[in-house]
Amino acid sequence: MLKDGERIDDLQLEGLKIIQNPSWFCFGIDAVLLSDFAKARHKERVVDLGTGTGIIPLLMHGKYKPSKIIGVEIQREVADMARRSVELNNLSDKIEIFEGDIKDCFNALGVNSFDVVVTNPPYKKSSTGLTNPEDKKAISRHEILVNLDEVIFSASRLLKGYGRLYMIHRPERLKDIILSLHNNKFTPKRIRFVHPSFNKPPTMVLIEAVKAGGDFLKIEAPLYVYDDKGNYTEEILKIYGIKS
Amino acid sequence: MLKDGERIDDLQLEGLKIIQNPSWFCFGIDAVLLSDFAKARHKERVVDLGTGTGIIPLLMHGKYKPSKIIGVEIQREVADMARRSVELNNLSDKIEIFEGDIKDCFNALGVNSFDVVVTNPPYKKSSTGLTNPEDKKAISRHEILVNLDEVIFSASRLLKGYGRLYMIHRPERLKDIILSLHNNKFTPKRIRFVHPSFNKPPTMVLIEAVKAGGDFLKIEAPLYVYDDKGNYTEEILKIYGIKS
Repeated sequence: MLKDGERIDDLQLEGLKIIQNPSWFCFGIDAVLLSDFAKARHKERVVDLGTGTGIIPLLMHGKYKPSKIIGVEIQREVADMARRSVELNNLSDKIEIFEGDIKDCFNALGVNSFDVVVTNPPYKKSSTGLTNPEDKKAISRHEILVNLDEVIFSASRLLKGYGRLYMIHRPERLKDIILSLHNNKFTPKRIRFVHPSFNKPPTMVLIEAVKAGGDFLKIEAPLYVYDDKGNYTEEILKIYGIKS
Repeated sequence: MLKDGERIDDLQLEGLKIIQNPSWFCFGIDAVLLSDFAKARHKERVVDLGTGTGIIPLLMHGKYKPSKIIGVEIQREVADMARRSVELNNLSDKIEIFEGDIKDCFNALGVNSFDVVVTNPPYKKSSTGLTNPEDKKAISRHEILVNLDEVIFSASRLLKGYGRLYMIHRPERLKDIILSLHNNKFTPKRIRFVHPSFNKPPTMVLIEAVKAGGDFLKIEAPLYVYDDKGNYTEEILKIYGIKS
């Protein structure tokens, strides 16, 4: 089941496990926060754009048990690893890993046919020449193979009317995100900033947008990662399932 | 100097005083926060769109001493009161109250001729029929005589290239603000949310945008009004000049 350099980690959630290769990348707090911020009902069908190791489908299955989650991943070896994680958890009927391009995956997966799209896309604008296109870390972090607009366009194609898009991104991209959502017929509904601690600027932003939805935006209370003493806050411990 | 129902309040800043009529409206924390968030250099020329009692010109004069501040106010009696406050402080050479409409004041004041525009505009979308157009409170709070787009358009006409717009508004209007800034060739540069306390959603947002400026957005650390015990935070006390 495991290939060279891989290891199995316990997700501390309903006995779920994940295969990761630390030399490529391991999932971070952003995937955990996004899976918690996103919501899905039992009957709903979900797509995760840029699924990587499959962490978000696994966590969302653990939390919400939607009828189906499809993780889209363009890198063959990464998609293969994610697929083996799904098998390891006996979830092949619930989670499917689709090896393909975010930019046109809606042609294969179906237009106007999903209730929820989640995505933890590459955060950084690609600076030509500085990154190695074979580098799995770079592909997951920089807009090399797909950019923000393309992710949001694809989400808009995949979703039904009133379908929800949940995204985590960098606060400095907020203007780009809001403009792109608007251009793709989304309305931002809920925004939550994630701060390392009380008096620090946010380092991440969580966004819920609705396709062809209403026009009321709520900026939520801040989410703080660490308290004054440098320990995880109660809320983060709850999100990680360490405290209930 | 004073008319019926008016009173003089001390601004606790360089001996400045202001005339207010409590039955119309008195300035609130938003004007104080905006005056502190905004910056102006000695050589710069500033316009305050919708100046009301003239509170923002008075506070910005007290803090930054720009060469000229023009406060635009459409309501004759309110403009008259603001003008008398300017005279009371012997600042007629530094602050001018222009009685006119935000929507076309640039024709009289000059296009591409200011360094800074500040504005604490009406926050709420006008709901036809619910508000009395003669009501001074309603005009200052609801988009009856001017809306967000018109304020931002006017700011764009008034400002030179790289001129700065400083605005305070409601967080739920953030999408509208970002779209309108974009449509009027502004780039948001600095956004700061104001929260009643640590774990509450923001109730106000401060925005700095640059006309034809660069593309880097910074979301700043939150500004909290009250601490855990319900007292003003140190930062608010500093902004009010109570603590240095």
